[in-house]
Amino acid sequence: MSTRLDLDLPVSELTAVICDIASVSGDEQVLADAVERALRECPHLEVDREGDTVLARTMTAPHNAGAVIVAGHLDTVPVAGNLPVTRDGEFLWGRGTVDMKGGVAVMLRLAAHIPEPRRDVTYVFYDNEEVAADLNGLGRISRNRPELLRGDFAVLMEPTAAAVEGGCNGTLRVEVTVRGTAAHSARWWKGSNAIHDVAPVLERLRAYVPAEVEVDGLVYREGLNAVGIEGGIAGNVIPDRCVVAVNYRFAPDKSEQQALAHVSEVFEGFELKLADTAPAARPGLGEPAAAAFVEAVGGDVRAKEGWTDVARFSALGIPAVNYGPGDPLLAHADDERVDLREIRVCEERMRAWLAG
Amino acid sequence: MSTRLDLDLPVSELTAVICDIASVSGDEQVLADAVERALRECPHLEVDREGDTVLARTMTAPHNAGAVIVAGHLDTVPVAGNLPVTRDGEFLWGRGTVDMKGGVAVMLRLAAHIPEPRRDVTYVFYDNEEVAADLNGLGRISRNRPELLRGDFAVLMEPTAAAVEGGCNGTLRVEVTVRGTAAHSARWWKGSNAIHDVAPVLERLRAYVPAEVEVDGLVYREGLNAVGIEGGIAGNVIPDRCVVAVNYRFAPDKSEQQALAHVSEVFEGFELKLADTAPAARPGLGEPAAAAFVEAVGGDVRAKEGWTDVARFSALGIPAVNYGPGDPLLAHADDERVDLREIRVCEERMRAWLAG
Repeated sequence: MSTRLDLDLPVSELTAVICDIASVSGDEQVLADAVERALRECPHLEVDREGDTVLARTMTAPHNAGAVIVAGHLDTVPVAGNLPVTRDGEFLWGRGTVDMKGGVAVMLRLAAHIPEPRRDVTYVFYDNEEVAADLNGLGRISRNRPELLRGDFAVLMEPTAAAVEGGCNGTLRVEVTVRGTAAHSARWWKGSNAIHDVAPVLERLRAYVPAEVEVDGLVYREGLNAVGIEGGIAGNVIPDRCVVAVNYRFAPDKSEQQALAHVSEVFEGFELKLADTAPAARPGLGEPAAAAFVEAVGGDVRAKEGWTDVARFSALGIPAVNYGPGDPLLAHADDERVDLREIRVCEERMRAWLAG
Repeated sequence: MSTRLDLDLPVSELTAVICDIASVSGDEQVLADAVERALRECPHLEVDREGDTVLARTMTAPHNAGAVIVAGHLDTVPVAGNLPVTRDGEFLWGRGTVDMKGGVAVMLRLAAHIPEPRRDVTYVFYDNEEVAADLNGLGRISRNRPELLRGDFAVLMEPTAAAVEGGCNGTLRVEVTVRGTAAHSARWWKGSNAIHDVAPVLERLRAYVPAEVEVDGLVYREGLNAVGIEGGIAGNVIPDRCVVAVNYRFAPDKSEQQALAHVSEVFEGFELKLADTAPAARPGLGEPAAAAFVEAVGGDVRAKEGWTDVARFSALGIPAVNYGPGDPLLAHADDERVDLREIRVCEERMRAWLAG
C-alpha cells in the first residue's frame, strides 16, 4: 500500500505530511513512491524514476524561453525523536522541516500547478544527499543519465532562509607531512624532531591572508585552515613524522587543479598529498535565465559559503543557485524548525518566476 | 620440581643457563626460586624473599668499610624466537643476554664466592623492571621494606658495556593544551583555530637550548622535546583544541618540582598539565664507597643518558651508578647478544672492588 500525497494541500500542510513520511538516507523509497505517484497523475508532466530519484519534466512548446532545473533531495539526516512534526503558530518543528522537505513541498506544488511554465522545467527529487558523495542521487543521474539534466540554469532548493545564494566555494584537503628521525628521547640528539619541524607549516597558515574573490558579481570568501594534526610514537621517543591536514575553501574562479597548485605554492618545500577535492560552482548570474530568476525572487543575492550540490550542476556546465525556505543553521539540529511564512514566500516567488 | 643453579660454573656458562630459564616480566617465579635455592645453600648469606624478589646479605664484622648494594632485575622483555641462547665464538645470542642475565650471573658468582667482602653487601635480584613502574620489584621493596636496602652506595648492573655510568637524568612529561573555537571550515571566521595557535608552543621548543649540567664531576645533557601532538575534529571543522605532549629530561641538580617549575616557565602563558614524572639520580661519586668502586673498576666514568632504577636508590638517599656487561643499544633487540669477555671483565673488577 502506498502513501498518497495531495498536492492541492496548502504548501505548509503538504510540508508537514512529507516530513512525517520519514526518509532518512537509504530509506527514501516510501517517499519516492508517493512523489512518483502524485506526479504521474499530472498529465502535463513526463515522469522518470531512477532508483529513489524521481524526475518530472514539463513539455511546453519548443519556442519557449529556455530550460531550467529545480532540484531538491528527499532524504534527511537521522531522526532525533523529532517526528512526527509539531506545529507552534507559524513554526513547524521536526526533522526535515528545514533540510529540506519545505523545499520539496514547494517543488511538488509548482510541478503540479504550473502546467505551462514560461521555461521548460525539470524537477529533480533525489536520494542520498546527506551521506557519502558516491551515493548521491543527483551525482548518479549526472553520471549515468546526463541527458535528463537539461537546462541553462538550475535552482537547488536547499535552505537559504529564502535568500538567493549563488554558486559555492570548492573544497580541497591536503596532508602536509614533515619527517624526522626517531630516537630515544633520552638521546634526542641522535634523532630529528618532526613535531618541532612542523612549526613553519603552522606559521605559514597563520600568516596566510585568505582572498575575497568576486565572481559574477558575488564575493566569495576563501579559507585555508589546519583541520587536523597528528604526530608521536611514544612518550619517550623523538617523533619521526608529523602530518597536518589542511582544508582549502576556494572561490569559483579556480578549478580544482588551480586550487591544488595554489596550496602547493603555499607549502612549497614540504611533502604534500591531496586527500580529497570537490569543485566550486559559479553562480552564473549573467545568464538570462538566472537574471530573470533574481529579478523574480528579489532580495539580496549573496555567495554561498558551504559546498552544496550546485557544484554538480556547475560540473555539467549549468550555473546554479541555492534558494529555499529554512534557516540553514537549524539544518540537522535537534530543534530543527521552519518558519512557514518562508515556505509560502518561496512558493510565491518561484511561481512568479516560472509562471510569469 | 625446581631448577638447580650451579654457581661454580664459569660466569659465561652460568649466563647461558640463566637466559634459558625464560623469565619475561610477570613470569619470574621459576628463576626466582632457582636463585633463592642456590643462595640459601651459601652459609655466609642471609636470604630474604619478597614476591619474586630475592635479597641476599653478607654478614661481615661491624667494623667493615661500610655497606653497599648490588642490584639487578630477573625479568626480560618478551622472547622474540631468540631462546634458547646460541653461542658463536665469544658471543652469546638470545633474549636476556644483554638485559640483563649477564649482570645477574656476575651477581650470583660474587654472592656465592666472596664470603667475607670488605664491605657488607646486599644483593637484590628483583622482578618486573621491564613493565609499568608500579609493578617494579625494587620500587616495591623500597616502599614496603626499605630496611632491607641498607648502604652508602649502590651498583645497578644494567648493561653499560662495562663502563661506569653515574646517576641518571630525571624525566617528566607535560601536556600543553591550546584551545580555540569550533566552526564549520566554510565559515572559519566564526571559529578560532587551535592548531594554528600551537605554532608558538613549537617555536619555543625549537628555540630552546638544553643545558649541559655538571653534577659530582659528570656532565648530564638535558633535553626538551615534543613527543606527541593531536588536534582536529573532522575534515570540515575548525579545531577547538590541540595538545602537545612534551618530555623534559632533566639533570640530577634538579628535583621533580624544580623541573616542573622550569617547564612551566618555558611555556608561560599556556595551559599546562603534568602527565608523569620520575626523579633524577646523583652519581654521588664523592662518597668514599663510590670513589673506591671507580678506582677498582677503572676506565672512563660518564653520565647515564636514560632513566634507570638508580633513581630509586637516589630517592632513598643512596647514590648509585650503572655498571654491567652488554651493549645497551642491543637491549630488547631481536638480535640481542653479549660479548662474554665483558661479562668476565665485570666479574673480575667487581670482585677486585668487593674482595679487595
